[in-house]
Amino acid sequence: MNVIQINGGVCAPLGFKAAGIHCGIRKNKIKKDFALIVSDVNASAAGVFTQNLVKGAPVVLSKQHLASGYAQAIICNSGNANTCNANGMQIAEEMCKLVERVSGIKSDDVLVASTGVIGQTLDIAPMANSIDELYANLGDNSQDAAQAIMTTDTVEKSVAVQFNLGNKVCKIGAIAKGVGMVCPNMATNLIFITTDVAITPTLLQKALSSDVKSSFNMVSVDGDQSTNDTCVILANGLAANEIIDSENAHYKAFKKALNYCTVKLSKMIARDGEGATKLIECKVTGANSVKQARNVAKTVIKSSLFKAAMFGADANWGRVLCAIGYSGENVDVTKIDVEFQSKSGNLPVCENGFGIEFSEDKAKKVLSEEEVKVNINLKIGKSKASAWGCDLTYDYVKINGDYRT
Amino acid sequence: MNVIQINGGVCAPLGFKAAGIHCGIRKNKIKKDFALIVSDVNASAAGVFTQNLVKGAPVVLSKQHLASGYAQAIICNSGNANTCNANGMQIAEEMCKLVERVSGIKSDDVLVASTGVIGQTLDIAPMANSIDELYANLGDNSQDAAQAIMTTDTVEKSVAVQFNLGNKVCKIGAIAKGVGMVCPNMATNLIFITTDVAITPTLLQKALSSDVKSSFNMVSVDGDQSTNDTCVILANGLAANEIIDSENAHYKAFKKALNYCTVKLSKMIARDGEGATKLIECKVTGANSVKQARNVAKTVIKSSLFKAAMFGADANWGRVLCAIGYSGENVDVTKIDVEFQSKSGNLPVCENGFGIEFSEDKAKKVLSEEEVKVNINLKIGKSKASAWGCDLTYDYVKINGDYRT
Repeated sequence: MNVIQINGGVCAPLGFKAAGIHCGIRKNKIKKDFALIVSDVNASAAGVFTQNLVKGAPVVLSKQHLASGYAQAIICNSGNANTCNANGMQIAEEMCKLVERVSGIKSDDVLVASTGVIGQTLDIAPMANSIDELYANLGDNSQDAAQAIMTTDTVEKSVAVQFNLGNKVCKIGAIAKGVGMVCPNMATNLIFITTDVAITPTLLQKALSSDVKSSFNMVSVDGDQSTNDTCVILANGLAANEIIDSENAHYKAFKKALNYCTVKLSKMIARDGEGATKLIECKVTGANSVKQARNVAKTVIKSSLFKAAMFGADANWGRVLCAIGYSGENVDVTKIDVEFQSKSGNLPVCENGFGIEFSEDKAKKVLSEEEVKVNINLKIGKSKASAWGCDLTYDYVKINGDYRT
Repeated sequence: MNVIQINGGVCAPLGFKAAGIHCGIRKNKIKKDFALIVSDVNASAAGVFTQNLVKGAPVVLSKQHLASGYAQAIICNSGNANTCNANGMQIAEEMCKLVERVSGIKSDDVLVASTGVIGQTLDIAPMANSIDELYANLGDNSQDAAQAIMTTDTVEKSVAVQFNLGNKVCKIGAIAKGVGMVCPNMATNLIFITTDVAITPTLLQKALSSDVKSSFNMVSVDGDQSTNDTCVILANGLAANEIIDSENAHYKAFKKALNYCTVKLSKMIARDGEGATKLIECKVTGANSVKQARNVAKTVIKSSLFKAAMFGADANWGRVLCAIGYSGENVDVTKIDVEFQSKSGNLPVCENGFGIEFSEDKAKKVLSEEEVKVNINLKIGKSKASAWGCDLTYDYVKINGDYRT
């Protein structure tokens, strides 16, 4: 099956419209802060959410609204996380009711998300005053929506693909925001996915839950896990494929296309990590199990010392071994091979747990590229996994040293 | 019982001498890199070591030498961790034999430690050529030894105390290096403790193992766990107190004095964290268990986002709640109180899980001090714990972006 990347973001699949405007939650008037995604018809819906015990009110409410297995719209604001404040649930409910008021979609069929500062009261007024404008803007405006959910993101994150199920052309589109508080545990910050595939809610949830383990769960920017992580998908069935109601070949094809989108977004999120100058991919092979490969890859990609070395283009592979050592996985240190890789070439640095000689000049060259891989071969099994992250930079500290005020 | 702080470091207790010189492992000739601590008589000995699966050769050898329960000397180099290199064990053994050669102390009774870059071959020659000079320098030179074990430490770390057991005056002295790869799991980097207390090896080990849980295990600089963490103690009995061979009142008094030293060093290590501008103490009260209190305190002190906010003197308490939420502890978010505290005053910022109003001016003032506490009351129990860390700064990134070359 061919998966072809196309334009259009969340509006690429049939029957989806989007909008994004500035409503006034953010002080900066050129920054959009209010987004809406609507399906023409009610859709199968699924989601994965933060496992943080401190959950944003929108997370709690969206979970409730997903219980039916169906939803038709997603509303989201940036600039305020609507979390750890006294009236969060009330505001989240009012946001859904605003959508009902303008669209007629039942508020129970609206999913809601918020992102921004924790612990400040979110005023409904700017959103209430702007909901008509937001609704009027609905159209082929995925980019506006993608911009409206950004916080410290420097670029909007969007992807869409096309593929066939039987003789039907199907599409998946997605937008995301990432950047800070991004940790490899459950979905990453906000990800909104649309598709015109016909699939039952049960299998949609199964596909999404399985997918995030190899995509968004493998991304780390700073190891902090957000209170508002939300990844939801709406599948409205307008592609008119035979409905996927079992784990058949079409289910597998859908999962493959979905994973194409989620891995693309994962890399974009990692690459745009707060202050990041480069995308780091940690690829672990030769593991005893996928779980082991994932855990080793995540531990390395999270190490502050390793991330700082990547910023400095310093081939300090000892920090890679060190991180593997505290991953909690029972590996054989005397078998581990490590190499760095980028478009400037491959640089083996460690063989069977011991350092091997390499050219410092070549190391600088390989590590100075914008995309760097660290390949770890544990040589004890056949399983593999990849994790994505970024370097730790002065700018990460700067961005987070004074984010709130 | 009174514990009185005194001078002298590891040479404060009776019968201990120390030395620290430059032998040539480090390129910078004004940086000492070779240290020796010797007891006049064989001593009860105990240690706690890194739990990293990747262990430095000196860690492996020191554990073997501790198996007897006795030791008489500690030898240490900085500038090279003697880890993940082909002949690490051989070099570690040769270091112990150098001590035997000059002192007559059996190499089995020598503990060995190394700190510095991982994965590079350590040459015995500079140490072999300088062991006579090092031995000749043995004396009341705790400060030299403390300097010789430093890596990116900006100040040497030393403490000593005096206390009574019955009618005998007893002393404990200690030196430490910390700074990078400091994580709340087992002992922190290198800590060498001396005491003239008479105590059996079994109880000495028990006291040390118990102590680190509330001291060095509660320190985090960057969440990375070193391959070479070593905390060892020699107790030579020259204070002539009645030997401690049960968990009696003298054992408790000894533990109290030991904890005074280890907490002092823990704070020094945190305060001198790589690039740190301030010491952060996270104090958790009202927990269900000490384990819970410790885990919450450690999770908060490790959060990159919280640490960056402390650097920026930004009272972003949402990040404190967020970290508590992903600590894995089953707390009641709606009960949590948070306040910041420094010598400029107390600043309550969160009550029962919700934000409360505070003056931004006062917040800046409180958080701009060099020692800042974040007090968390979980209000679900009576247990408490403290953890120590530092802010995340530009300089952390700078120091670690190009450490190796």
